Amino acid sequence: MPHVTPRVEIKESGSRISKPCIIVGVPEVGLVGTIACSYLVEQLKLEARGYIDSDLVPQVMIVHDSVPGYPIQIFGKDGIVVVLSEVPLSLRLSLELAKELSSWARAREAKVVVGLSGEPSQKREESQGENKPTVVAVSNDDQILKGVQAKGALPFEQGVITGFYASLLKYCTLDQQTNVTLLGESMLQFPDPAAAASVIDALAGIIPVKVDTKPLLKESEDIRMRTRELMQQTQQAAHQTGGTPSAYR
Amino acid sequence: MPHVTPRVEIKESGSRISKPCIIVGVPEVGLVGTIACSYLVEQLKLEARGYIDSDLVPQVMIVHDSVPGYPIQIFGKDGIVVVLSEVPLSLRLSLELAKELSSWARAREAKVVVGLSGEPSQKREESQGENKPTVVAVSNDDQILKGVQAKGALPFEQGVITGFYASLLKYCTLDQQTNVTLLGESMLQFPDPAAAASVIDALAGIIPVKVDTKPLLKESEDIRMRTRELMQQTQQAAHQTGGTPSAYR
Amino acid sequence: MPHVTPRVEIKESGSRISKPCIIVGVPEVGLVGTIACSYLVEQLKLEARGYIDSDLVPQVMIVHDSVPGYPIQIFGKDGIVVVLSEVPLSLRLSLELAKELSSWARAREAKVVVGLSGEPSQKREESQGENKPTVVAVSNDDQILKGVQAKGALPFEQGVITGFYASLLKYCTLDQQTNVTLLGESMLQFPDPAAAASVIDALAGIIPVKVDTKPLLKESEDIRMRTRELMQQTQQAAHQTGGTPSAYR
Amino acid sequence: MPHVTPRVEIKESGSRISKPCIIVGVPEVGLVGTIACSYLVEQLKLEARGYIDSDLVPQVMIVHDSVPGYPIQIFGKDGIVVVLSEVPLSLRLSLELAKELSSWARAREAKVVVGLSGEPSQKREESQGENKPTVVAVSNDDQILKGVQAKGALPFEQGVITGFYASLLKYCTLDQQTNVTLLGESMLQFPDPAAAASVIDALAGIIPVKVDTKPLLKESEDIRMRTRELMQQTQQAAHQTGGTPSAYR
Amino acid sequence: MPHVTPRVEIKESGSRISKPCIIVGVPEVGLVGTIACSYLVEQLKLEARGYIDSDLVPQVMIVHDSVPGYPIQIFGKDGIVVVLSEVPLSLRLSLELAKELSSWARAREAKVVVGLSGEPSQKREESQGENKPTVVAVSNDDQILKGVQAKGALPFEQGVITGFYASLLKYCTLDQQTNVTLLGESMLQFPDPAAAASVIDALAGIIPVKVDTKPLLKESEDIRMRTRELMQQTQQAAHQTGGTPSAYR
Repeated sequence: MPHVTPRVEIKESGSRISKPCIIVGVPEVGLVGTIACSYLVEQLKLEARGYIDSDLVPQVMIVHDSVPGYPIQIFGKDGIVVVLSEVPLSLRLSLELAKELSSWARAREAKVVVGLSGEPSQKREESQGENKPTVVAVSNDDQILKGVQAKGALPFEQGVITGFYASLLKYCTLDQQTNVTLLGESMLQFPDPAAAASVIDALAGIIPVKVDTKPLLKESEDIRMRTRELMQQTQQAAHQTGGTPSAYR
Repeated sequence: MPHVTPRVEIKESGSRISKPCIIVGVPEVGLVGTIACSYLVEQLKLEARGYIDSDLVPQVMIVHDSVPGYPIQIFGKDGIVVVLSEVPLSLRLSLELAKELSSWARAREAKVVVGLSGEPSQKREESQGENKPTVVAVSNDDQILKGVQAKGALPFEQGVITGFYASLLKYCTLDQQTNVTLLGESMLQFPDPAAAASVIDALAGIIPVKVDTKPLLKESEDIRMRTRELMQQTQQAAHQTGGTPSAYR
Repeated sequence: MPHVTPRVEIKESGSRISKPCIIVGVPEVGLVGTIACSYLVEQLKLEARGYIDSDLVPQVMIVHDSVPGYPIQIFGKDGIVVVLSEVPLSLRLSLELAKELSSWARAREAKVVVGLSGEPSQKREESQGENKPTVVAVSNDDQILKGVQAKGALPFEQGVITGFYASLLKYCTLDQQTNVTLLGESMLQFPDPAAAASVIDALAGIIPVKVDTKPLLKESEDIRMRTRELMQQTQQAAHQTGGTPSAYR
Repeated sequence: MPHVTPRVEIKESGSRISKPCIIVGVPEVGLVGTIACSYLVEQLKLEARGYIDSDLVPQVMIVHDSVPGYPIQIFGKDGIVVVLSEVPLSLRLSLELAKELSSWARAREAKVVVGLSGEPSQKREESQGENKPTVVAVSNDDQILKGVQAKGALPFEQGVITGFYASLLKYCTLDQQTNVTLLGESMLQFPDPAAAASVIDALAGIIPVKVDTKPLLKESEDIRMRTRELMQQTQQAAHQTGGTPSAYR
Repeated sequence: MPHVTPRVEIKESGSRISKPCIIVGVPEVGLVGTIACSYLVEQLKLEARGYIDSDLVPQVMIVHDSVPGYPIQIFGKDGIVVVLSEVPLSLRLSLELAKELSSWARAREAKVVVGLSGEPSQKREESQGENKPTVVAVSNDDQILKGVQAKGALPFEQGVITGFYASLLKYCTLDQQTNVTLLGESMLQFPDPAAAASVIDALAGIIPVKVDTKPLLKESEDIRMRTRELMQQTQQAAHQTGGTPSAYR
């Protein structure tokens, strides 16, 4: 039943971080964005600083130690802000969230908006994820591009970016907001923590803080299992159309 | 054919119960919420105090002794209010109902909003429902959490809540309304009165009245049959798209 | 392509019948309502007194002797009004029609709104429709209930009413309009004129006129064929999505 | 993506024909309406006098001698107006077009609106279209009915009219605009020029001009092929949902 | 979730080209329009002069040398403007874009709007694309038609134009904007650079600049591969409904 488009609202708490680097991770290819941003929150001990609300967000609450939390959250400290989604985004939500994040970044005079994600790679799939995944970078800013390339990111010669990160890039460009998208070569069928480690390494060309990715690689199998389970549960919720469980239908 | 979103309206009758504990049951996993709340209404001899109306509610009337009643009803007495749905909720209805109930609870200065439901359990399914189902609790309030844990509810370490109860938790948290959700370990494929008994036992940590759950366990088979039939009839109605019966199509 | 909800309009002609008994029949289970109301119009020689228009009504005209007529019509005489639909109602139309009929009944100070329909019966199906179908009654008024029970209607102990008649009951109750729904035990797969005869017999407890149902039982086979054919033709129209016939698709 | 209902606009050119007979043909059963109206335009040498525009009309232009034309056109001369659609109408377009044509006819003080179409006939299908198809007539005006019956149209005893012609009849009746619908007994699976010839013959009871239908019968096979091809091309366009051809999907 | 129709916005940069010839290519049959317009941009060294934005455009950015670009772009120089889409258009986008381009052309006092596309040809498919594809022309202007026919375009005797180019023709005609559509005989299943070369040759009858199509024919196989890949990637994006990749669903 139709109504006016639900707004996406960014609800911040605490003092504002000025001129931040905003790092964004949502679950797309290889769940690279979600894994990388969760790891950054943990390693950098970022504080909870708000959440994103909308009727478009799936009907899900994430529970940790009996306390419920929102599925799309904001964390931050010392000039770094992480926006992390633990739920898949519908097409409309991904459009609206990209639009909202871009204008919010502009309003906060963000230094850069960094999108972290994966790029499906047949090669990586076939080698069973053996080698270190490469990272390609796309940016609307030359300086930023040079920074991440100095840390090992390769140029993206020809191709397309799709989904949430395409919209984020588009709205940042429209709003004249510096944006860089880092895409780690990723397995197709599984969450890929190694690809997440690679994009975090490339990130060192932009943010002032050093993040050690060894623990991420070590607990790789563990993270893969955990992320996959979370994703399956939230996916179910996202695709549910309401009503009693299937057994009674 | 689209139109403005149908409102969900809470229509109360009788004198207002002040600062109530509001217990909510809708048919999700194991039909735990509906079974538990029906039992509370019966055992505590709660009086009919209104109903919930919306174009989103399925086209159904529940008949008892030739008298028709609304499918989502409100009962209450002595500081306890029960909101009971005998029909499955569509996604939109479950969102709108959660929103409305939360702001209604706030307006009545409710002490707590308690969501009763089930959590699908492979273990319980395999043991054929032999042991007493455990209950996990999620809350936005520490005191309440301690209360139900004292009555045997376990902590919910990590995971997701989905569906109506996730929305109820979300809107209560947004409205700063105390909420606790009790999830009884439930069979997947069948209505689970034993899970309903367990959540009622845990409820003793919140509401002042003692409810004996032995009769509920004793008539378990009976209740299971009756609830299942009701659910099938209302489900049919909920999924009907109008018109003559299938034979003429 | 969306637009504002099409209104259902009741277009009356002739002088108004004051404080009428309004009898409503639409094609649901066993086509009982449509068969019973058609028979009442014929036997009581009721006059055409208007029709119901809406963009939601299927794109159909009913032709009789080269003259086209509307698919949902109003007939009446001597304090009796019959609302008869010869087309199946979509979910939205059935909601809107119920709403409109209830407030129209209220405005005419109707003594009672009577819904005539069938209740699917496995037993009747198995006995091949041999015995006289029983009738159950549901009402929001005690007196009316006693009246129809005196004419053989049984109480409806426990269960659900669904579809158009549930909505009619709901809106009449909301509008404080007396309503009774008579449900004849009906075959599932075929139009059931005997079930229609039974509900007409029970009607004698409400309306002052006596209607002989013997001819209805005698021409049972004939009516069954005719009604079924009509229903198939209108069904086709109701499900058509426009365009040229299937052969050219 | 929704928006307000697209209007159907009748765009006329040239001087207005006063008090016309308006003859309408759209592609439904046997493509009778389209074949008959195309033939009338050709035989009576009617002039192009406008077209009908709407976002609901399929994304199609009809090309003749390298010049593009609209798919729903208006032709006319000497008190006769023909409205001819060469594209199938969606349900919504057929409703809106019927509504608009009826009120336009009223505004032009039209003597009569004539719908030409086919009626699917098992008998005609089985005889392989051997005999002259019969024509039945439905009208909201006695005089007109007598006129066409004098030219061989039979009465339509009992049944239903569906689709565009049902809506045209409905809105004309609501607008108190004289309407007659001529339905030629038609083959189900093929365009039926002979059925078109029969409805043109019956038309002689209404319009003052004599139209010789022998050439139509003679070129029957040719017309059938041509019409079928046109219909297939426009059908494809009507069902296309945009984008590149299927090969790249 | 509905909202008001997204506008299609033409965002220009640089100085305005006055009274231009506007050449439009979108990916329909044989991807002829996209191939031809890309080649024109390259050969005529046209400068980037803007892009077309809308929520209806698929969620895609086209990357070249690590720099992201919009999927529908405007190029121009010396009185020639090319509008080139590298993404397939949905039905609604193709309608809205046609409408917007036509009124924009009118506002710029464009000499002509030229649509370049393909016409599916069984013959060409069977001959494996051996001979030079013929071109047919449709126009609402005699002079233009003569011009392109002088360069080898054939008349379009009878048939239909569908899709984006039909809408472009329709809105140009409504806006009294000169339009010509050149359709190269094209293979059905593959991108057809030879068909693109043929429409460019016919274009010489309209635009003052000579474009050598030999390189286009020579690199035919290469272009075919490249275009096909691009189209597959963007198609995927266009049909994606959001969320995580299929592996996690």
